[in-house]
Amino acid sequence: MGRIRLTVEYDGTNYSGWQRQENAVSVQQRLEEALYKLLREDVRVTGASRTDAGVHALGQTVHFDTKSRIPPEKYAFALNTMLPDDIRVRASRAAVDGFHARFDAKGKIYRYMMFNSPHASALLRNSHAHVMYPLDAALMDEEARSVEGTHDFKAFAASGSVAKDTVRTIYACRVARSGEEVMLLVHGSGFLYNMVRILAGTLIQVGCGKLESGAIERALSGKSRLSLGVTAPPHGLTLMRVFYEDDAAEAAGRFADMLDRFARP
Amino acid sequence: MGRIRLTVEYDGTNYSGWQRQENAVSVQQRLEEALYKLLREDVRVTGASRTDAGVHALGQTVHFDTKSRIPPEKYAFALNTMLPDDIRVRASRAAVDGFHARFDAKGKIYRYMMFNSPHASALLRNSHAHVMYPLDAALMDEEARSVEGTHDFKAFAASGSVAKDTVRTIYACRVARSGEEVMLLVHGSGFLYNMVRILAGTLIQVGCGKLESGAIERALSGKSRLSLGVTAPPHGLTLMRVFYEDDAAEAAGRFADMLDRFARP
Repeated sequence: MGRIRLTVEYDGTNYSGWQRQENAVSVQQRLEEALYKLLREDVRVTGASRTDAGVHALGQTVHFDTKSRIPPEKYAFALNTMLPDDIRVRASRAAVDGFHARFDAKGKIYRYMMFNSPHASALLRNSHAHVMYPLDAALMDEEARSVEGTHDFKAFAASGSVAKDTVRTIYACRVARSGEEVMLLVHGSGFLYNMVRILAGTLIQVGCGKLESGAIERALSGKSRLSLGVTAPPHGLTLMRVFYEDDAAEAAGRFADMLDRFARP
Repeated sequence: MGRIRLTVEYDGTNYSGWQRQENAVSVQQRLEEALYKLLREDVRVTGASRTDAGVHALGQTVHFDTKSRIPPEKYAFALNTMLPDDIRVRASRAAVDGFHARFDAKGKIYRYMMFNSPHASALLRNSHAHVMYPLDAALMDEEARSVEGTHDFKAFAASGSVAKDTVRTIYACRVARSGEEVMLLVHGSGFLYNMVRILAGTLIQVGCGKLESGAIERALSGKSRLSLGVTAPPHGLTLMRVFYEDDAAEAAGRFADMLDRFARP
């Protein structure tokens, strides 16, 4: 009897998103089905982030409670034999008392990938948004940095969003290029619904000259969605990692490492 | 009326391979269907390499003849509107007189990707072979270099192979690691059927200690398949580029660039 914590990777292409819903297959449902097969228990799992249809995860964090005495670190291997191959449990362990994957999250890193070339990519079609106009990644990087700090991100909230508190802190936001790939990496205390996709859409429009630099600063000061770009498509987005400790140095190190592995000097 | 040359990228996951065959969908068939829709001509395309089921290409080179007067450089855009999204024409141009995509090839670069972690990857499941045992990439790199040079690669020929001339020249062969990914990159004058997959399988077994170092040298001197490893699965393999000019410096530069973009110092 206890609470288990999982790190889950998934390809969101064939799912209606993280959260269970009627008439559509979600990642949560597949994970709960696998747990039922393994434990013969009706287990309800909670994820740190309710990712949308088409959005991927390399480090979704999940918790659930079980009566089973299976050693916590065995869940990864056991569940992977029950799961479809586009969902993989990368790690499992006992959660500390009262741990909550969603409410205890102190920060998250998201990645948004673009494929910047006149023609789309066959191999990267499900992981990168295709942008046919040449992108100025240096200009996008400069613009991206203006979201850093604590701001009221009301302008970045999707229409119909119900969030009352729209203040968030962005610790780091960078854009880099490697060949035909352009990456947006953003680390924040939390994100409003569609916030990273609106940020990506805005940076793409700035990067190809369809929107003037300074759009983000204007939106943050005016709190209006109007000066921002369109919402970028979901399949470019990946939840990279969720942080639970107030360890700024560790999180900054992870961020730098992800950026560094991607972009060559 | 003329000969057109295409550079084609494809995700081989959903195809029976490059070559047209009964009762299965091939990349060649999809490309010929797209050309028929565009030109209303029965066009037969020829590819540089007849990649197997599940094998990918970033730079398959293709030629075909047509009576159409469409400007050669327009084919890429026009065909991409007709093709499924897991096949993309990345470039098109007029071929020089008598150009033959297969017989004129002077060299090819192949890449074989491994995901080295106790658990498989969801996002890389169709592009990387999963290897759960820790791989010593430095040891694999050392072993890989022993295929460089001109050798009789009879030991690397798949059983049932009909190739009479089994002598090939390997210009460069390297293994590198970046995090959980391990890459084999090989540039040669040509390759026997399954040769890169037998090479990858052998290097994997050397890298996890199941086969002693020197296996490749022993196989090359004894010309026996027995001292080599099993054939690695097709989905890790990608045809990166086909060379038609005897420009060793340009090819070496491309190879170094691919290696460099992957592996961090």
